[in-house]
Amino acid sequence: MRIQKARTQGFCFGVELTYKKALAETAERDDVYTMGNIVHNPLIVRELDDKGLKNVDSLGDIPEGTLFVRAHGLPPQTIAEAEGKGLRVVDATCPMVTRTQRLAKKLTEEGRTVVILGDPNHPEVKGIAGHAPGCIVMNEWPEDESQIRRARRIAIVSQSTLNGDKFRELVGKIAAMNYELRVYNTICSDTQGRQKSARELAGEVDTMIVIGGTKSANTRHLAEISEAEGATAHLIENLEDLRREWFRGDERVGIATGASTPGFLADEVIDRLMEWFPQAEADWA
Amino acid sequence: MRIQKARTQGFCFGVELTYKKALAETAERDDVYTMGNIVHNPLIVRELDDKGLKNVDSLGDIPEGTLFVRAHGLPPQTIAEAEGKGLRVVDATCPMVTRTQRLAKKLTEEGRTVVILGDPNHPEVKGIAGHAPGCIVMNEWPEDESQIRRARRIAIVSQSTLNGDKFRELVGKIAAMNYELRVYNTICSDTQGRQKSARELAGEVDTMIVIGGTKSANTRHLAEISEAEGATAHLIENLEDLRREWFRGDERVGIATGASTPGFLADEVIDRLMEWFPQAEADWA
Repeated sequence: MRIQKARTQGFCFGVELTYKKALAETAERDDVYTMGNIVHNPLIVRELDDKGLKNVDSLGDIPEGTLFVRAHGLPPQTIAEAEGKGLRVVDATCPMVTRTQRLAKKLTEEGRTVVILGDPNHPEVKGIAGHAPGCIVMNEWPEDESQIRRARRIAIVSQSTLNGDKFRELVGKIAAMNYELRVYNTICSDTQGRQKSARELAGEVDTMIVIGGTKSANTRHLAEISEAEGATAHLIENLEDLRREWFRGDERVGIATGASTPGFLADEVIDRLMEWFPQAEADWA
Repeated sequence: MRIQKARTQGFCFGVELTYKKALAETAERDDVYTMGNIVHNPLIVRELDDKGLKNVDSLGDIPEGTLFVRAHGLPPQTIAEAEGKGLRVVDATCPMVTRTQRLAKKLTEEGRTVVILGDPNHPEVKGIAGHAPGCIVMNEWPEDESQIRRARRIAIVSQSTLNGDKFRELVGKIAAMNYELRVYNTICSDTQGRQKSARELAGEVDTMIVIGGTKSANTRHLAEISEAEGATAHLIENLEDLRREWFRGDERVGIATGASTPGFLADEVIDRLMEWFPQAEADWA
């Protein structure tokens, strides 16, 4: 067995920033609330839970104190409502997402129909959509094309963690339907780099272990990309999910991690594989 | 055998215009020159040749008289040169192409890198490129991506007769490489309609007969699209090219025609098929 890690590992820039802000806030106060998990990684969520970050479903569940806006951002309407009820708001939205929110707002104000490529149920997409009234959210090509056919002066933006293949496909199709179109590739550079390094590695190995939250969009895309390259991909959240029966012992194994996956998890997986298969060779870099 | 014609038939708007202008010009004068065939259909070319339209390779071959600018257009440099040497210039460029030339010029003047999707050897593309100094012409995805990676502020336009599938593919790929992009789908509406009706028909029949000039980009794309839909496609220029051995007699046959294919050719093909297979049923509409 030969084990290799994908080139891009560890927290992305945005997760790192949000994580540190949450640590600082919870160290100073005990009235810090987040609406939903601050990032899509269960280990980080548990750590901050232990430090007193309170996770609520809605603003109504926050009596007073601080609304901590997580990495994915929030619709401006929610932030205005929080401020209206006297909450202190700490904005830890990923700067890449903030940039896309502002862009979507500007494009809408210019009279364009904003099309957001991404999952309508993902909090980042909901936040961006809040900045672009009248926008269209598209995760798959719709069976009913009438909405996109009727739209005029379309400008496309994307969820920061969209699969690049899906971006290419949907942009191409929308462009073919419109005389004039603006496209902003707001897939963040970390996601693009992580997808590229997962794709390269998956092309060289038999089995890919993708580590990250099962709810994490960017992590799931790494598994999809690995399968598309012909590797067998297993998505795990932590060491306990790893199964010995997935391996024969003579294969090449690649490890890729999501943007909110702590770096030590990949090393733990390597340790476990070397325990099971002592002849295994690993690139620790 | 059952024979059906694709919904869109006959000359497109631009070819019709150019053809009529050429008839009018040649009726009035005998010093009318075109650089290259006025449209990519040999029957029309022969007819206008008989009426005295002179086909030359370069401006140097025109001693005096009229330069008839054919449907595909010409680079502005060539037109300026013709005017400089005292020629009378009659512009019969397809209005859709003129619109794209003007757009490419405007985008270049705004400091954008114009990417023309199309065949670099096609006269229409050469004409548009003449209006957009510094542009990139792309017919296939390049092995060396450096030129497209280095380009800033890209605006995409297209040859009027590009295959829509290729447009989607190339636009998607370029968009994935750039933060901001403008896309103008300058595939003309006739081409889009002809491709759509050929695709629909090819999906229902066994064999497609595509009639048009073998040099005609839009005709060749109809054959490609038909094959992609699973039909066997034969590209013919005229009745003489039609082969009896292509048919069994019990199949469904579709007929599609290019933008510069005279309408009577499809009917001639139907006549011939009915001669060979008297039980055949044909939709003449």
